Amino acid sequence: MTDPPMRAEPGIVAVVGAGLVGQAWSVVFARAGHAVHLYDVDPAAAWHALGAIREMVDSLASARLLAGEEPAVVMARVTPVGDLPDALSGAIHVQECVPERIELKARITHRLAELAGDDAALASSTSGLAPSLFTADVRDRGRCLVAHPINPVHLHKAVELVPAPWTRPDVMVRTRDLLVAAGMQPVVLTAEIDGFVVNRLQGAILHEAFRLVAAGVVRADDVDRAVRDALAPRWSLMGLFETIDLNAPGGIRDYVERYERMYQDIARTQHDTVSWLAALDTGLERDRRAALPIGQLDDRREWRNQKLLDIAADHGVTGR
Amino acid sequence: MTDPPMRAEPGIVAVVGAGLVGQAWSVVFARAGHAVHLYDVDPAAAWHALGAIREMVDSLASARLLAGEEPAVVMARVTPVGDLPDALSGAIHVQECVPERIELKARITHRLAELAGDDAALASSTSGLAPSLFTADVRDRGRCLVAHPINPVHLHKAVELVPAPWTRPDVMVRTRDLLVAAGMQPVVLTAEIDGFVVNRLQGAILHEAFRLVAAGVVRADDVDRAVRDALAPRWSLMGLFETIDLNAPGGIRDYVERYERMYQDIARTQHDTVSWLAALDTGLERDRRAALPIGQLDDRREWRNQKLLDIAADHGVTGR
Repeated sequence: MTDPPMRAEPGIVAVVGAGLVGQAWSVVFARAGHAVHLYDVDPAAAWHALGAIREMVDSLASARLLAGEEPAVVMARVTPVGDLPDALSGAIHVQECVPERIELKARITHRLAELAGDDAALASSTSGLAPSLFTADVRDRGRCLVAHPINPVHLHKAVELVPAPWTRPDVMVRTRDLLVAAGMQPVVLTAEIDGFVVNRLQGAILHEAFRLVAAGVVRADDVDRAVRDALAPRWSLMGLFETIDLNAPGGIRDYVERYERMYQDIARTQHDTVSWLAALDTGLERDRRAALPIGQLDDRREWRNQKLLDIAADHGVTGR
Repeated sequence: MTDPPMRAEPGIVAVVGAGLVGQAWSVVFARAGHAVHLYDVDPAAAWHALGAIREMVDSLASARLLAGEEPAVVMARVTPVGDLPDALSGAIHVQECVPERIELKARITHRLAELAGDDAALASSTSGLAPSLFTADVRDRGRCLVAHPINPVHLHKAVELVPAPWTRPDVMVRTRDLLVAAGMQPVVLTAEIDGFVVNRLQGAILHEAFRLVAAGVVRADDVDRAVRDALAPRWSLMGLFETIDLNAPGGIRDYVERYERMYQDIARTQHDTVSWLAALDTGLERDRRAALPIGQLDDRREWRNQKLLDIAADHGVTGR
């Protein structure tokens, strides 16, 4: 359902902040052919990040997710740059990846806006701060937006693009095109909204899951089976709307005409949320720890990441 | 995370109703080694169903999902039986798959309870009718329950087990064990609830999706990308709770302590539902039909089913 991405016109992309998110963004942009200038307030951190970046590139290579290029070729495009003006010089896109503190975001965005060339889009990786909260007072604020990726960033194609009220439409379009060309699947919002889209959707289904467990209707592993073995396989192929489009003979209108009433009736019992913290003590946390002791979380995360890599390989770097 | 199922003690399973759901249940039980007695009020329908059952068995064989058996061996276990008492004779489990009309469910359940041996569990495949609505007045009603599968039944492991207030615990346990042994992943409810679990979870996330589209925040294909390329890959591996268990360093309690407040804040804007039918006219239906013309729905369904078969093959018939 997705056009194969074109290789972007290669340019310079500045990645600001060399933590996990900045490392993975460096992989995404370097794989797409861009020259990545990786900056961190701690110059040693940017150099140190190269090791982690190499590991990500190698894992993508092992899954044939480097578009046929050698890891060394991709790595050669990533350059730690110790000076912020140098890092931004000539950049067509700046991806800010500093910690999630609003005053920090505001301060770095102010500096980026002063130093970056007029052509550069200024994208923040924030997972939850509305862009209007930290881009209001900067020079040429129309080129500021949020580009929120999903962890682990190099294993997920989705990225949420969120405009502030003053973000220019051409900046949204240009950023979208840049990311599509890099093999991403941008989720484009028309306006700021708390939680953006991914966390709003996740919250909605989690509230119902906690509600059911707190009410004693099911246990945590039953909820996980319901999602893993009934709903998510289809959603991982098609998302929500295409799933229901195929689930009635006449498509989505037919589906809505048949089933909306049932879902609206159910919704009347889904208004109130329960305390998640309290729900943990109804057996939920005990069940999770029995299924996976705390000491095995890291191993299980490695397993998950390998599986996500397999899924990405199955879908292909160029989308389905 | 799942024990490999044991091969069940083979027995006789009666499948009552030879439509799509009854056909797929026949495949599931025959693959597990049971002798399937397939009954339909129209005897020709039960014979006719053998062709469709053979196609399902062949497709599972092509994906190596027959536990190493030949299709003919599995097919030989399915016998159309034209007479209901004969079909039920000796059955350890009865799977009712008649159309979703409550008076029809009540009437057939009454007959099944009269005719089946005392040892047989009486399971209805209903997708939405609470078992108390049609099992209250039958003989030995403690052995009645709902076992709701997910379409296409032979491609999904989830099945919801829903007790009426009078369903005996040992019947729930026995049915669960029978289905686990058949490679299924039962979602066990402790009580009836509207929509059971799968549709309650699906409804909760769909309400938010329709809300976002109706508000003009995103378009349908953006929602589908958010789910397909961000949320569903993890959910298809682990479900909801294990996903968040891995998404904070200290596990699910750490996750809840970090993020519950954000999700509760968001929830205050998720109380009211929008009209799904009205949302269709905000561009949602037009976008769906532009992405997939109505005449291509069937082709896309075939693609989906092949992909679901691939996913099932990847996970293996015996669980992960």
